[in-house]
Amino acid sequence: MLAGGVGAARFLRGLHSLLEPRQLTIIGNTGDDDTFFGLHVSPDLDTVTYTLAGRVGERFGWGVRGDTFACLSALGRYYKESWFQLGDRDLATHIFRTDALRRGESLSSVTSQIAQRHGLRSTLLPMTDDSVRTVVHVAGRGALPFQHYLVKGRGRGRVQRVELKGVHRARPALGVLTAIRQADIVLLPPSNPIVSIGPILGLVGVRDALRKTGARVAAVSPIVRGAPIKGPAHRLLRGLGHEVSPFGVANLYRDFVDLFVLDRRDATHASRIEGLGMRTLVTDTIMSTPAKSRALAAAVLQEVEA
Amino acid sequence: MLAGGVGAARFLRGLHSLLEPRQLTIIGNTGDDDTFFGLHVSPDLDTVTYTLAGRVGERFGWGVRGDTFACLSALGRYYKESWFQLGDRDLATHIFRTDALRRGESLSSVTSQIAQRHGLRSTLLPMTDDSVRTVVHVAGRGALPFQHYLVKGRGRGRVQRVELKGVHRARPALGVLTAIRQADIVLLPPSNPIVSIGPILGLVGVRDALRKTGARVAAVSPIVRGAPIKGPAHRLLRGLGHEVSPFGVANLYRDFVDLFVLDRRDATHASRIEGLGMRTLVTDTIMSTPAKSRALAAAVLQEVEA
Repeated sequence: MLAGGVGAARFLRGLHSLLEPRQLTIIGNTGDDDTFFGLHVSPDLDTVTYTLAGRVGERFGWGVRGDTFACLSALGRYYKESWFQLGDRDLATHIFRTDALRRGESLSSVTSQIAQRHGLRSTLLPMTDDSVRTVVHVAGRGALPFQHYLVKGRGRGRVQRVELKGVHRARPALGVLTAIRQADIVLLPPSNPIVSIGPILGLVGVRDALRKTGARVAAVSPIVRGAPIKGPAHRLLRGLGHEVSPFGVANLYRDFVDLFVLDRRDATHASRIEGLGMRTLVTDTIMSTPAKSRALAAAVLQEVEA
Repeated sequence: MLAGGVGAARFLRGLHSLLEPRQLTIIGNTGDDDTFFGLHVSPDLDTVTYTLAGRVGERFGWGVRGDTFACLSALGRYYKESWFQLGDRDLATHIFRTDALRRGESLSSVTSQIAQRHGLRSTLLPMTDDSVRTVVHVAGRGALPFQHYLVKGRGRGRVQRVELKGVHRARPALGVLTAIRQADIVLLPPSNPIVSIGPILGLVGVRDALRKTGARVAAVSPIVRGAPIKGPAHRLLRGLGHEVSPFGVANLYRDFVDLFVLDRRDATHASRIEGLGMRTLVTDTIMSTPAKSRALAAAVLQEVEA
């Protein structure tokens, strides 16, 4: 599975109970990574880890459930900006990651250790050990590092361009291409196609591996009735000239997806999507409860294997 | 004032209300500094800052009052050793310090910023911007970094040797020698003479500046009736062949102290100490309440100016 943050985590919440955990490899986006207070934060990787550990914050779908914010509050004494919400327990992960990276360990190695310490039995790989940083160019506001755009700027404004800094020099982390080539199924959860899945697809060799893999490849639309469940995917799609619809998303994946999953509310899009050369599954895709996550994952697995 | 940790802070608690804060410069020991979880911790500097800010933990005399330990608890997931008690609010200071040092700022600059953000109007200087690390050699246990010796090892065991790694190459921080030379009074609070005051005295030029300054120099004995109020000063003195008494401490300062302050319980030591060529003040030195801290500081100020 390729994974962004919350959309991927919601899907994983359902998927992981349907599989032997060791069968699952998750390739996490790191384009959203950033440095806060000198600490290396990998929001998408951590959201996956905390979710699989059963420890993710329920309300927002990120962070550690029941976390407190005493350290962040005290950091406000030293820093002008403390808008990125880092809880006390969550901070331990960033402190450990930063410490390990400074000692020369790779992000892959640190990510694997963090996953293990949280009891994960699935494999979690960062998409790359190299630096890729997503920068969103917004009309009148300039180039915003992704978290500034998303969290501080609340994803507002007209998107002119998305830059994936470093993506052309970055190599997929060890295991990423092999996982895609050797998988039975590759899943793209309802993550943002531009800033969550986009950076992974932008890495040298990934798109090609997806085209050539013997795996069935299924993608779930993050767009339902013209808008994402969460986040600014509609603004990003529109800003880059894509249709804000399941078709718009499917079109971005047309060269490698076998099965495209869209919501019942968008059933009328199915035939256009099939025109791109992929099968479709029309079902309930809004994962508002764990049971709905499981039902969606089960439907996707069943259909993609059909 | 030269300063170690808790003994110095107890004295400062009394002293600072007797002076115009801007008249006071504190030179803090950094030989106790260490790195935990990749974060640069300066225990003595922070104890001084939190004390002067009225924010120090009352019970132990260090840390932030009312602090919580959620992050430390979560760090236990990643690290085998989490015996050094770092509270959530306290961690913010270490995160900021580490971030600033990594960006190339000096410890002096960071220390000054931390002090300012806590509202201090006195000047707090680290003794040096260079690395000095106190290592205690303990029989049967080898060379222990100071915090390992003090906190993890609880200051136990027979001390064979104290090593101040880097002290011969370290330069006093900008302002340290000038403060000593230009002061009216230099105070040595009841800090550990070996591991709190010792590293400061060991820096090139400091002892010489103390000998030559026009300031009156007063020191308060940290030893009362053969033992320190807190900490392992007795074991350190004994291990290095010094007498565990006010005389033993005074003897370490014999070349530059004008007034030596000792507790009433040790009044019989006064004449021997005067034999070292210094005046003595016999008074209550145990600062179990803020009022007692103030009374001691007032008595020392009055006598040293006499």
